[in-house]
Amino acid sequence: MNKKNKKVNAAILIIGNEILSGRTQDKNVAFISNWLNSKCGISVEEVRIIPDIEKTIINNVLLLSKNFSYLFTTGGIGPTHDDITASSISKAFKVKYEIHNEAYKILTNYYGKKKFNDGRKKMAKLPKGSKLIYNPSSAAPGFMIKNVLSLPGVPSILNSMIENCKRYLIKGSKTYSRTINLYTVESNISKELGKIQKKYKKFVDVGSYPFFRLGKIGVAIVTRSTSLKKLKFINKELLILVKNKKIKKLKI
Amino acid sequence: MNKKNKKVNAAILIIGNEILSGRTQDKNVAFISNWLNSKCGISVEEVRIIPDIEKTIINNVLLLSKNFSYLFTTGGIGPTHDDITASSISKAFKVKYEIHNEAYKILTNYYGKKKFNDGRKKMAKLPKGSKLIYNPSSAAPGFMIKNVLSLPGVPSILNSMIENCKRYLIKGSKTYSRTINLYTVESNISKELGKIQKKYKKFVDVGSYPFFRLGKIGVAIVTRSTSLKKLKFINKELLILVKNKKIKKLKI
Repeated sequence: MNKKNKKVNAAILIIGNEILSGRTQDKNVAFISNWLNSKCGISVEEVRIIPDIEKTIINNVLLLSKNFSYLFTTGGIGPTHDDITASSISKAFKVKYEIHNEAYKILTNYYGKKKFNDGRKKMAKLPKGSKLIYNPSSAAPGFMIKNVLSLPGVPSILNSMIENCKRYLIKGSKTYSRTINLYTVESNISKELGKIQKKYKKFVDVGSYPFFRLGKIGVAIVTRSTSLKKLKFINKELLILVKNKKIKKLKI
Repeated sequence: MNKKNKKVNAAILIIGNEILSGRTQDKNVAFISNWLNSKCGISVEEVRIIPDIEKTIINNVLLLSKNFSYLFTTGGIGPTHDDITASSISKAFKVKYEIHNEAYKILTNYYGKKKFNDGRKKMAKLPKGSKLIYNPSSAAPGFMIKNVLSLPGVPSILNSMIENCKRYLIKGSKTYSRTINLYTVESNISKELGKIQKKYKKFVDVGSYPFFRLGKIGVAIVTRSTSLKKLKFINKELLILVKNKKIKKLKI
């Protein structure tokens, strides 16, 4: 396979009533998506947030792992009754949910035999055949089975583990992006932007995002492409448009 | 219908490459979900984040509007080429995508005839038969067709419009929640918590969420129920457990 133009994609499944209810603000989507693109050339193409319900987890794991190169799950791998990600994924793939010897050793070493209680032992139970994703923060590992990688929900722990996913991932083509921040409104440039997007639709995605900062209205023009050369070329054309329209650029 | 025990649910569909790519951190899920529960007794049961691709929007709108009482979409209703929510929803429901007279009037008044350019006119094009969701920030309205309510992606504008959704929504039973923050680790209470959840599973959801604050490890026990009376009763039982285990409570 041509490594340069390989399309590798991923989905993220956020498992957790606390995100759905609005109690907790998710921070994992942006982190995982940025990391996957910049470090592995993998683009996230769908995200779902679902409750801690076994049947819902099973259905989504089966569907998303089939439709994307990789599926990342977050949440539900701790010691309490509402942590049902590992058992649900076992059911989804029809494999045993059982003690993983290496995970068990890691946790025994970390807690010591005396403090390794039943709740903690639960964190060593994984789908049979899982590979471990090591956890430098709090020992309890994540796991990978088939193309599904399961990480914890707590952002600081997840962030500390993400580099340990790399060994399991096939790299794709990185998507580069450029942002031009303008002191204008979208409707002032919408027509020309649409033309540029149409002209280069094979190579680049052109996005337009209004923002409000320091009391001023602006628009961020974001271009994204797997070819840095083409991206630079298209950005030159955008800058000519900005100059011709006499739009001021913002440095932010 | 018994107003007290009515189950009304919703899904949220976040439409936007900028959220998927990790460039922008979503803030709308937590806001909409909190508002729907506290003001309307509606619980959000699924969220999806998808790219600006017409076919993907159509498929998700049809599926989620069928499976939930309401579907809220955010993003893609501005003046640029990547704003395709209104046209895609028109196709999903097989209705015309056309100028909405009232929206057109609102926008003409807001911009004045001279400044009402083609980009801005696009924001008056909606699925035929849509009802408007008024926008006190920047005039361009959201819209509701069937059980789908479409709002913009910019959080400050969305937030200013949300109260104008209320008139279109049937209210359900509010879900109450209580949080007990403990100075302990999950595995210390996982067994007992599991028992309490099992005992009261018909009335209450018990969630357990580890946190790190000011260098200390803690656990938030969150209980949720549509019955405030039962919630209080179960929280008393939890507090007895906490006392018996000699766990310190955190005031945060």
